[in-house]
Amino acid sequence: MATIINGVTTAQDIKDEIAESVRQIKEQGGKIPHLAAILVGDDGASQAYVGGKVKACEYVGFKSTLKELDADIDEETLLQVVDQLNDDADIDGYIVQLPLPAHLSARKVTERIRPEKDVDGFHPVNVGRMVKGLPAYVSATPFGIMQLLERYGVETEGKHCVVIGRSDIVGTPMSILLSRKSKPGNCTVTVCHSRTPNIKELSLQADIVIAALGIPEFLTGDMVSEGVVVIDVGITRVPDATRPRGYALKGDVKYDEVEPKASYITPVPGGVGPMTIAALLHNTLLASKKEIYQ
Amino acid sequence: MATIINGVTTAQDIKDEIAESVRQIKEQGGKIPHLAAILVGDDGASQAYVGGKVKACEYVGFKSTLKELDADIDEETLLQVVDQLNDDADIDGYIVQLPLPAHLSARKVTERIRPEKDVDGFHPVNVGRMVKGLPAYVSATPFGIMQLLERYGVETEGKHCVVIGRSDIVGTPMSILLSRKSKPGNCTVTVCHSRTPNIKELSLQADIVIAALGIPEFLTGDMVSEGVVVIDVGITRVPDATRPRGYALKGDVKYDEVEPKASYITPVPGGVGPMTIAALLHNTLLASKKEIYQ
Repeated sequence: MATIINGVTTAQDIKDEIAESVRQIKEQGGKIPHLAAILVGDDGASQAYVGGKVKACEYVGFKSTLKELDADIDEETLLQVVDQLNDDADIDGYIVQLPLPAHLSARKVTERIRPEKDVDGFHPVNVGRMVKGLPAYVSATPFGIMQLLERYGVETEGKHCVVIGRSDIVGTPMSILLSRKSKPGNCTVTVCHSRTPNIKELSLQADIVIAALGIPEFLTGDMVSEGVVVIDVGITRVPDATRPRGYALKGDVKYDEVEPKASYITPVPGGVGPMTIAALLHNTLLASKKEIYQ
Repeated sequence: MATIINGVTTAQDIKDEIAESVRQIKEQGGKIPHLAAILVGDDGASQAYVGGKVKACEYVGFKSTLKELDADIDEETLLQVVDQLNDDADIDGYIVQLPLPAHLSARKVTERIRPEKDVDGFHPVNVGRMVKGLPAYVSATPFGIMQLLERYGVETEGKHCVVIGRSDIVGTPMSILLSRKSKPGNCTVTVCHSRTPNIKELSLQADIVIAALGIPEFLTGDMVSEGVVVIDVGITRVPDATRPRGYALKGDVKYDEVEPKASYITPVPGGVGPMTIAALLHNTLLASKKEIYQ
């Protein structure tokens, strides 16, 4: 019987710890952490994500500022809003909700954010610092996975971790974080992807599998060994007429086959997903304390 | 019989190509590429390295500037020299020769270099851009290895590359470069290190082994399979009374055992090492053409 890694309760624990830190800061008359978000356009999913972030700020006692901009804003004007947030001394960190409308360059906007305020951890400076083992904002999903491994006491030292997927926001940073000399860390790490001819052969050797390729139920029971730790990063809407919304959310892991063989496993939903907002709050708290950049 | 990958002739080819580019630039009245180097103190090895770089500049037709500073220079003064080079419009790129004397922070100096002029590729912005698949200066050793693989036509697509060593200057960037969607690239990559309990089991599965752990003759014949491609990044002085200088240079690969099983192999010396200056010249040419940063 696998231990089910519960991202909902773990994220709640982190939020409560952060709320306690904010209470102490207030008591001592310190500066209240302040997170801002830029939302361009009226995409429903993006609105919901940003709304959740604002609510989480309220929960932990952060100040929050939401800049809502028209979908047809030109890039220069958007970059001016970014510059305003860069220069606003009260704002400790901010995010630009992605995706942006097609006429705007996410890359240009991301690179304009001051690394000190880049609490999403997407700026090249933060990615590069992470690779070099320097203090850095680690982006939400990798941070969330590291927290889950740590808080559930999953042993990583000397273990073989197979990461399936090489994206720059999940697969690649996970391979870097888990291979370095740290705790969690010190794993032997193998990165597989669409051009890997023998994924099954490799995943069968894994003590830990991180499935982050975005193919629903890709990792089947015959692909893992007894006792494996499985982190499922995928979340895809799969049509399902029996569901009220007409779809089911599926991870990259065939849960009913893999769970009986696993020692630890994250469910979808309720595993890695809920951790992302907690990561953002964590980074904002670090920013307000100037713990990454002095 | 393995094909011996010759870093000396390959580096010479690259230098000759760069010299040809410079001739064309001169013909068209364009700006001559200009590389500067900061050398702090009088360490003999560092002087020799920098001297080699200056000579290589002369060979290809670059301008070069050498700033020699006293070993006891204070950090603030060194950073002022860095700022001068940042602001000098004629200088396309520059390096600060490492290691620095112990009272100076290599990290602080590296982060002060403008990323646009960081032709060593050590600034976090260049490392982060590389991870994100954006245009970046790739540091010398990883660039050199990628060039050797490419110019010798080593097939990497779908191959399993085992990288032994996780340093932020060789092991980690190699794992990133070879796993991404590019040519050379598209490898399945495994990173092993001192905490990996079963390196031999993994290296036996490898189509390509990159040995970069700094232990002389670590990779023995029984650790590799027939047909393996072996890139040896190690170079250690091992005492040897029979040699005129009292030492021999040893790589991380037990060459006489591994070479007979390999399809391609780099010797030490004469493999990866000579490629580093060619990489620096290559990055400086890119800098002068503003091909990475516009």
